[in-house]
Amino acid sequence: MDIRILTVEEHILSSNEEEARKNKDRLNEHGICAINVMSSPGAGKTSLILGTISALKEKVRIAVIEGDIASTLDAEKVNQHGIPVIQINTAGSCHLDASIIKKALDNLPLNDLDLLIVENVGNLVCPAEFALGEHKKVMLLSAPEGHDKPYKYPLMFTIADVVLLNKVDLLPYIDFDTTGFRQAVSALNPKADLIEISCKTGDGLGKWFSWLETQMTK
Amino acid sequence: MDIRILTVEEHILSSNEEEARKNKDRLNEHGICAINVMSSPGAGKTSLILGTISALKEKVRIAVIEGDIASTLDAEKVNQHGIPVIQINTAGSCHLDASIIKKALDNLPLNDLDLLIVENVGNLVCPAEFALGEHKKVMLLSAPEGHDKPYKYPLMFTIADVVLLNKVDLLPYIDFDTTGFRQAVSALNPKADLIEISCKTGDGLGKWFSWLETQMTK
Repeated sequence: MDIRILTVEEHILSSNEEEARKNKDRLNEHGICAINVMSSPGAGKTSLILGTISALKEKVRIAVIEGDIASTLDAEKVNQHGIPVIQINTAGSCHLDASIIKKALDNLPLNDLDLLIVENVGNLVCPAEFALGEHKKVMLLSAPEGHDKPYKYPLMFTIADVVLLNKVDLLPYIDFDTTGFRQAVSALNPKADLIEISCKTGDGLGKWFSWLETQMTK
Repeated sequence: MDIRILTVEEHILSSNEEEARKNKDRLNEHGICAINVMSSPGAGKTSLILGTISALKEKVRIAVIEGDIASTLDAEKVNQHGIPVIQINTAGSCHLDASIIKKALDNLPLNDLDLLIVENVGNLVCPAEFALGEHKKVMLLSAPEGHDKPYKYPLMFTIADVVLLNKVDLLPYIDFDTTGFRQAVSALNPKADLIEISCKTGDGLGKWFSWLETQMTK
């Protein structure tokens, strides 16, 4: 039997773009660099953010916005570092948007920040469609998710400024074609940097910190 | 600094429920059992479905509906087994809904089927909100996603009829609290079955096949 393909249309709100532009202007006025961290559930966003805070907090004034469907688990972990954190519970909504970020910015000490890290809802689809006002889009793929993900979730890979391949410590135990993955990412998004990391072992994190610090000086 | 919580409201369309009921009636008229397989990207839905087809296709007449943002990769794999498959490309939409399934049913040989397997879009959030007309909701969690996921994505765990913990072959290499995970799932959803499997090694798949065959006789 042949494979049949049905296509479904979708609407995206453009008003979000306008709100995102206002957020970015506001961040720029305060000299804050903002990054939007996106991935599937459990790919390691929180571990990356905690590692980044530990490495940079002595020289960079950081705040975090934690986006979750439910729970304050991640915000509690961030809070232990003594930096400002806003927990957003989306009550079922599958992504953050610019209006939510505006409310969070209203509650942050913007005069005392250099770097704002936004952890989006764990979802490889919807967050890619909604600008928040961030300067850079960071996406993680957990190696166990598989090397075919760029083909199946192309938008996220297309809009990312940097792709972090996390959990590379598991590569010996899984079937993951690293070369094929790099080729697939490059085909979709030739400008994106691709950094292999393990938040568990620390491998590659130095490259990530360097990448991030470079963005902050731009 | 205290953690502040902002809550966002959400609207869910109820018309989907009506369409789902019609799909279920139609499936019942044909004596077809339908399952809706949901998980994060890369948790192993396609591997589970391919394994299920291999194990059961000699005694059960199976068809598959493949939901993806883009690509026909999964449908091509299913098609190699010579069973009916419909590829749905949602063009960015993050979940299937009942109206999409209706169109797919229009294109399937309903008189010649016992089991319909629907592979939803890889997403641990939105698919949980949309009934398709299925008889049972099946969710997979890939062990590398972490044992805290029931707290962070409670709806999916709450609505599942069975939770499959996949990639248990990786448990020796990751920090995953199996007991804590079982307790968290049970607290949210005491009626859900929880089966540990590895689609890679085949461990636990016999229990899954038994569970599925039990549902088909109901």
